[in-house]
Amino acid sequence: MNSFGRIFRLMVYGESHGKSVGVIIDGTPPGIKIDKDDFREDLEKRSGGYAGTSSRVEADIPQFLSGTFEGRTTGAPLNVFFANSDVNSVEYEKWRFIPRPGHSDFSAFNKFRGFNDFRGGGHFSGRMTVVLVAAGVIAKKILGNLEFSSSLLEIGGEKDIDKIKKNIESEEDSVGGIVECRVRNVPTGLGEPFFDSVESRMSHILFSIPGIKGVEFGSGFSGTRLKGSENNDQFINSNGKRSSNNAGGVEGGITNGMDVVFRVAVKPTSTIFRKQKSINLKTGKEEIIKISGRHDKCIALRVPVILEASAAIVLADLLMIRNITGGPANL
Amino acid sequence: MNSFGRIFRLMVYGESHGKSVGVIIDGTPPGIKIDKDDFREDLEKRSGGYAGTSSRVEADIPQFLSGTFEGRTTGAPLNVFFANSDVNSVEYEKWRFIPRPGHSDFSAFNKFRGFNDFRGGGHFSGRMTVVLVAAGVIAKKILGNLEFSSSLLEIGGEKDIDKIKKNIESEEDSVGGIVECRVRNVPTGLGEPFFDSVESRMSHILFSIPGIKGVEFGSGFSGTRLKGSENNDQFINSNGKRSSNNAGGVEGGITNGMDVVFRVAVKPTSTIFRKQKSINLKTGKEEIIKISGRHDKCIALRVPVILEASAAIVLADLLMIRNITGGPANL
Amino acid sequence: MNSFGRIFRLMVYGESHGKSVGVIIDGTPPGIKIDKDDFREDLEKRSGGYAGTSSRVEADIPQFLSGTFEGRTTGAPLNVFFANSDVNSVEYEKWRFIPRPGHSDFSAFNKFRGFNDFRGGGHFSGRMTVVLVAAGVIAKKILGNLEFSSSLLEIGGEKDIDKIKKNIESEEDSVGGIVECRVRNVPTGLGEPFFDSVESRMSHILFSIPGIKGVEFGSGFSGTRLKGSENNDQFINSNGKRSSNNAGGVEGGITNGMDVVFRVAVKPTSTIFRKQKSINLKTGKEEIIKISGRHDKCIALRVPVILEASAAIVLADLLMIRNITGGPANL
Amino acid sequence: MNSFGRIFRLMVYGESHGKSVGVIIDGTPPGIKIDKDDFREDLEKRSGGYAGTSSRVEADIPQFLSGTFEGRTTGAPLNVFFANSDVNSVEYEKWRFIPRPGHSDFSAFNKFRGFNDFRGGGHFSGRMTVVLVAAGVIAKKILGNLEFSSSLLEIGGEKDIDKIKKNIESEEDSVGGIVECRVRNVPTGLGEPFFDSVESRMSHILFSIPGIKGVEFGSGFSGTRLKGSENNDQFINSNGKRSSNNAGGVEGGITNGMDVVFRVAVKPTSTIFRKQKSINLKTGKEEIIKISGRHDKCIALRVPVILEASAAIVLADLLMIRNITGGPANL
Repeated sequence: MNSFGRIFRLMVYGESHGKSVGVIIDGTPPGIKIDKDDFREDLEKRSGGYAGTSSRVEADIPQFLSGTFEGRTTGAPLNVFFANSDVNSVEYEKWRFIPRPGHSDFSAFNKFRGFNDFRGGGHFSGRMTVVLVAAGVIAKKILGNLEFSSSLLEIGGEKDIDKIKKNIESEEDSVGGIVECRVRNVPTGLGEPFFDSVESRMSHILFSIPGIKGVEFGSGFSGTRLKGSENNDQFINSNGKRSSNNAGGVEGGITNGMDVVFRVAVKPTSTIFRKQKSINLKTGKEEIIKISGRHDKCIALRVPVILEASAAIVLADLLMIRNITGGPANL
Repeated sequence: MNSFGRIFRLMVYGESHGKSVGVIIDGTPPGIKIDKDDFREDLEKRSGGYAGTSSRVEADIPQFLSGTFEGRTTGAPLNVFFANSDVNSVEYEKWRFIPRPGHSDFSAFNKFRGFNDFRGGGHFSGRMTVVLVAAGVIAKKILGNLEFSSSLLEIGGEKDIDKIKKNIESEEDSVGGIVECRVRNVPTGLGEPFFDSVESRMSHILFSIPGIKGVEFGSGFSGTRLKGSENNDQFINSNGKRSSNNAGGVEGGITNGMDVVFRVAVKPTSTIFRKQKSINLKTGKEEIIKISGRHDKCIALRVPVILEASAAIVLADLLMIRNITGGPANL
Repeated sequence: MNSFGRIFRLMVYGESHGKSVGVIIDGTPPGIKIDKDDFREDLEKRSGGYAGTSSRVEADIPQFLSGTFEGRTTGAPLNVFFANSDVNSVEYEKWRFIPRPGHSDFSAFNKFRGFNDFRGGGHFSGRMTVVLVAAGVIAKKILGNLEFSSSLLEIGGEKDIDKIKKNIESEEDSVGGIVECRVRNVPTGLGEPFFDSVESRMSHILFSIPGIKGVEFGSGFSGTRLKGSENNDQFINSNGKRSSNNAGGVEGGITNGMDVVFRVAVKPTSTIFRKQKSINLKTGKEEIIKISGRHDKCIALRVPVILEASAAIVLADLLMIRNITGGPANL
Repeated sequence: MNSFGRIFRLMVYGESHGKSVGVIIDGTPPGIKIDKDDFREDLEKRSGGYAGTSSRVEADIPQFLSGTFEGRTTGAPLNVFFANSDVNSVEYEKWRFIPRPGHSDFSAFNKFRGFNDFRGGGHFSGRMTVVLVAAGVIAKKILGNLEFSSSLLEIGGEKDIDKIKKNIESEEDSVGGIVECRVRNVPTGLGEPFFDSVESRMSHILFSIPGIKGVEFGSGFSGTRLKGSENNDQFINSNGKRSSNNAGGVEGGITNGMDVVFRVAVKPTSTIFRKQKSINLKTGKEEIIKISGRHDKCIALRVPVILEASAAIVLADLLMIRNITGGPANL
């Protein structure tokens, strides 16, 4: 259940306020150079600590508990481990049986019969995304010349991102956003018709990221308002190059050689510092919850690099699979 | 690759213009009553044959090649088979090496090195959705009192569906649409934190449906423009009932007892009867393609029941899994 | 549950006395030539009809319900279907609630709450092995120059196979046997340390074959009586060639370039024409069961080609996986 | 590849001379009491340190890096981690390119292109079985009243185990053995017909244990020399109780309510202190290898509790699956 992928496979573990979070990566080719410094750039992009993001700042230094030898991957499972250090659970103890609206508190309590680690959302926390970013770093190495970029398109409905960023910190409430990711140099032929279309696999991992409530590829929802003649991407040369990219690089679930482009809807952070209506899970009575502590006011700000990592994880797996099953039959 | 699910599992097979399409369903509990007539209602909702949909009409009568005995499921794999009959491949032979923009023609050719069955899109065809609907019928039986409904919200950007439906047939071009699905009486606690959130599993299967380019849950993309205080669903009673449902029934990836609600973006049909720019896959030269034949002008019209089936398939699987791993530990 | 493999994947369906048995093969590379005649030799080896085997003889002509086009695989799921024709269920109806000792009758009844198709063992029947042989034919094509052979080592403890074969038919009872399979030209490096060792994957599929109760590789059980200095295979040249093959071609779970060699124990057929003690599953009372009809007196006679097929299915999958994850990292 | 199970799932990681070995266990029901002391008994049974076993002795104290809270499982992935401490790699560095006959050295080198951690067998080491035993402790808790026992039947062909144990230490060579495991109180109906028979799943994990070269159930290989009338287990009461247990508790791949009984062949330890013929993987030239250091002379001595753990892991998973798919259909 907590695993993803078919050849390049992840199994994640950990909790926000537990000892650690981490990921076992199986199926990594042997011989890939691996160093803590390789992870710094992407991990820092995710880490926050600036206006609009939580003041909890973990060092986020990966430890390789297995799967490396003499600075390279061995081909055995790679355990990338992050110790938790900057943890403060006092606030959570206080609200243990009072679920925060919009959070996993209520559903997790019911699913796990109250045995779940509720502190900071436990295994449901956004803290878990640090391991996606780490796995993404490995995936990008496997993918070689594919290029990943990502950007904020909207925050709270506002498209002038620099302007809105300045205002977030003074907000008492939280805001959502829309984030776009683009992958260049994607080979043709990745993905499967049923049920492992590129969109299927991508959305599967993207909707694991806490706070994501929508995913669209290419022209997406707005493309439903175009005519077929407008939305179809006309060919302009023999390599499959097109005059537009409304398909977001995926036709029939398979990459078509154009950039893979997708956008996600990030909901406004559920944790806000206002009074909200809740219930007491033990007594069943109504309660008012008012949270304090350290929280992102806009988690969308930290999402871009997580999208890149997610895309890289999926494409590394699909590329490995394509390299076999899509190969010539030689008969 | 062509399979889906963990306990209630599907493996699909078939091609649009081949002998058949079908699905093997594994993990079906024994003893479920099963009769061809049970499939009629949902299959007819999908079948088209009216204004805006293709004039190809298959009888769509399921045959059970395995897994039933004395009118009930046995617990062994259930093979639901549909023979293809109303097939005309002449038009496809003509355009064999001239890919239709927006279709799988180009990407499938590259993925399968030209060995794919190109006729009618082959294994990539919308024809494959008949087996999803059939599997959905079984899933709904397993789910008992869960209620599924679905509706068209927009066609070509127009919200007056009755009005736009009348005009579609005279259109020379194609149109897209937005379709919503709602599931009532969903138990709390279905889904997994990583990577099998309800949204992950749902979107995985939804993006397998040809033509789907966007998926959102609850307030989705529009929710990104709300404040956290507006988007959070406040509790109103001890059962977890809320005053709103912006989460679409899913918090932290797990069902919270509210209706599960999602919407999909259906692109305008790629096949249109206008001239389009393409290339010749053999010669590499530019070509103009102009297709005739039988095609949906708006595939969104046939999508609603397919969404219901997809949701049922996912929820049946997650319910079965919840019934074990979420059960009390009894220690 | 009824599926096997990671890239080259099977899902089997069908029942002994139902409409059909078959297999969906997913992950087959596109472009493999495929013809009914290619299956004849192996299917005939399995089919029986001679002394010691059942007089039920099916034509065993495969039909390809999906996944082929113009005589080649397309890369989409290949559905290989066998219609059942020579079926006589009268005897089974008679003993419906009186389980045959040694058979699946009792355990299947309990597992599937009495809804299982009991006729001829239903989905548990040796009839299912026809689909393994068919999948093996495809696997052998993928494997190219690997050579498969198999032979009977013992029947009923007797090593003079020709002699014992002559006597079987007149036996009132049934006999078991030991069968060996050998694969030549196996590349080095197939298999995984945990949990997908060659022995793990091989034994997994071999123990699916009805009647198999033991599996050993290389020197196997008798090797436990050797000293390490006797059992270790000494190197004789730089290609890894050895002076003996007690490892059966597998060290550390990975092929080492020597022939892969294994043996299986096939129990004496459970169905015998003598009186046996049973119980009535409805009344709970003791009953005497005495079966007539058509049955193998020694199923081991039909097992050799099934071992070859099983080995080919596993090795095709492992080869495909090796071709990616074991490839050079190119960094 | 390094994972096992469908609902109760393991992913193992680590190397003999690396930082650690460990296992992520997914699908553990929430609320199971868990304490380091619960693991002591089984881990000590495996640990060796006495005559015939290696003098390398690790403390083997499990650390729970994730998945527990307030002394109980949470339902999130449980990471059971063992630090390596008593490591001495000098001898291995010496023989880095000279593979030991019978070991994974040669095949691992070829599979992983020389990037594998060769020290002490790396990820292929018997050291990995400590995590199987740990996972077995959890599985036994899930299984409640099932009882596991295991015993040595033969060492080096000798059935007087006490006698042979005394002599092992003075041996210059190594010896193998045969080990039996028995599980009592197994419910009827666990396992699947294809491909997840109890024997299939059991043998799959058993052949992951380093040194196992044969597996048999019930009468196994010797049963092939019986007549059907002798090998069939006659019913003696309405609960399915039998007068014998030649089936080893499994008919048709499904548990039949009798004890599950199986035996494994453990080869003589590959590492011996005599001169052996090898080759140099770099130069291709012949070499003589003569190993010193700490090694088991008979790994069979440590295998019994590993068999129990393996059986528990499989049965916990199959029980969880049975509890859903085998449940009454309620229609």
